[in-house]
Amino acid sequence: MGSREFERIRWLAGITARESSPGSGGRVLLGIGDDAAIWAPPRGEAVVLTVDVQVEGIHFRPGWLRPAEIGARAVASSASDLAAMAARPGAILLSIVLPRESGETFFRRLYRGALEEAGRSGLAVLGGNLSAGPLQVSVTAIGSLRPSEAVPRGGARPGDGIYVTGWPGRSRIGRGLLEAGAGAARAGSPAARRACLRAFRAPRARILEARWLARRVGPRSLVDLSDGLALDLSHILEMSPGLGAGREPGAALDRKALAALLEEDGCAALSRRLGIDPLEASLSGGEDYEILLTAPPERAERVRVEFRRRFGIPLSRLGTVVEGGGVRCSGREVREAGFDHFRPDGG
Amino acid sequence: MGSREFERIRWLAGITARESSPGSGGRVLLGIGDDAAIWAPPRGEAVVLTVDVQVEGIHFRPGWLRPAEIGARAVASSASDLAAMAARPGAILLSIVLPRESGETFFRRLYRGALEEAGRSGLAVLGGNLSAGPLQVSVTAIGSLRPSEAVPRGGARPGDGIYVTGWPGRSRIGRGLLEAGAGAARAGSPAARRACLRAFRAPRARILEARWLARRVGPRSLVDLSDGLALDLSHILEMSPGLGAGREPGAALDRKALAALLEEDGCAALSRRLGIDPLEASLSGGEDYEILLTAPPERAERVRVEFRRRFGIPLSRLGTVVEGGGVRCSGREVREAGFDHFRPDGG
Repeated sequence: MGSREFERIRWLAGITARESSPGSGGRVLLGIGDDAAIWAPPRGEAVVLTVDVQVEGIHFRPGWLRPAEIGARAVASSASDLAAMAARPGAILLSIVLPRESGETFFRRLYRGALEEAGRSGLAVLGGNLSAGPLQVSVTAIGSLRPSEAVPRGGARPGDGIYVTGWPGRSRIGRGLLEAGAGAARAGSPAARRACLRAFRAPRARILEARWLARRVGPRSLVDLSDGLALDLSHILEMSPGLGAGREPGAALDRKALAALLEEDGCAALSRRLGIDPLEASLSGGEDYEILLTAPPERAERVRVEFRRRFGIPLSRLGTVVEGGGVRCSGREVREAGFDHFRPDGG
Repeated sequence: MGSREFERIRWLAGITARESSPGSGGRVLLGIGDDAAIWAPPRGEAVVLTVDVQVEGIHFRPGWLRPAEIGARAVASSASDLAAMAARPGAILLSIVLPRESGETFFRRLYRGALEEAGRSGLAVLGGNLSAGPLQVSVTAIGSLRPSEAVPRGGARPGDGIYVTGWPGRSRIGRGLLEAGAGAARAGSPAARRACLRAFRAPRARILEARWLARRVGPRSLVDLSDGLALDLSHILEMSPGLGAGREPGAALDRKALAALLEEDGCAALSRRLGIDPLEASLSGGEDYEILLTAPPERAERVRVEFRRRFGIPLSRLGTVVEGGGVRCSGREVREAGFDHFRPDGG
């Protein structure tokens, strides 16, 4: 993702705010600038909508994913934006573009992968569109939300703990393994290779986890990790009101807590073996599809053990929301960052 | 569109019906097999959803469309599926995939085109996704519908008149002009060239027209024309209950009425000049985005003059629904056809 994409998003958020039709049959409750949009029909309850795409050559290279994984990954990446809103999963529409020369087996496996992942996430398949063209799968996910359940991304306050589910960074290391190809076939431990490849190839949208956390913790802000922990965290901070005029809150991350994330299963050692700084993988890797939230520490700490028992993945504290100063890790500035949604992928 | 695409749609409609999750947060009221899907959140009113895509090299070739037309055409083709349901237009999500080398001017013009077309159709822009990759624009359109307003596609009955808006076939002739390139730059009359190029490059979703017709005529079935008149009509017939066991109704089209459609502005002459049979353009051209409906003739005839005055396009009777025998034109069989949705584009 480059600065050009952020410029584009800034431009189109502005022009859309100024020039978009209000829509003659419904109300836009939340538009460009969050993980998903919220829209309500004239006499109906609000629905949550989001779209995401997987493009061969951009999000994965030929040979990296099995056909079923291509379909499943596209569904998971879109469903993850529903998780980011703590929405109830509803349904998906698929737009599948396949090269003319691709065979029936490829098509069927891809579709079955999408169907199975939709089922795991509690999403019905509504239909969609088939077209010839360069391989890509675009998934629109729709969910629902009672207004009282909505968790904004811009509600972080100084003193909140910063928490994350799972093991951010594994997906980046898995991608590194695939990029390294045959030369890295025996790098690291088998458990580390398996864990990191699975994180890249078969991510899961944390829909159940996000809804459970929203209910049990009452987070002040919550997003999914798609662009990288540092960047997604900076989006939370930018949209959260500061204490003084124009001053947004900052984040103080704890380097040891971050490092501990990738020690499990030997993923950090594999990362170093591939020439990837594990801290960099965790902070900037992207495509983790884990949940990042901020909440008063006492509310989050009391559910951590139960969370791991129930979902089989950790809920880890990475730091604290502070009174300003951007995203810092044990005192060092991590990254300046921009805007979000339209979501810039692979730019 | 080939038989392989129909096979694919048949296969995935079957497997989806058998294996799709019911969706844990909502109800699927209408799934694969119609122009759009209808979905309702647990405590909300039903929403109408559809997705369509424009792929460079498949739906248009480089140089055929201005950037703004690429964006607008993608919105119109998706919005047209809302028209086919006579839904109230609500909003769209855009998934824009652009080659890395495409510049800011191209991107901004494309987006502005999409935004303007959305505004014309009464659709708010909710957000979406930007990605690098081969040029294509995927648009999810969402609308709403009171259950009493729904017009099924499978309600045609023998005795119904068959009516169409606008001038189906012009889009096919416009495409033919672009395919012929410089050699056809002066073919036909300027008015015919203008009309046919506009039909291909800048189609309009007939959302207002469809809602007006649904209210004023009370059609028995209604679709938009995207795959070609004969094929879209055969879909209506296949989904309409027959009088006897397993016998679906047929259509008797009037060759003279069809021929008259393209006489206006000299489009038929241009068609012949390009080596395209005008009747073939009307029946099989596709991408017309006009409305096709069946209704008792007395209910439709009384609004035809008012329709043309109000919307500036004709509402023409093309024939009659009969008791069986497929789609026939002045006695000759036109075409056997398949299924629909997942919508097969350009396959």
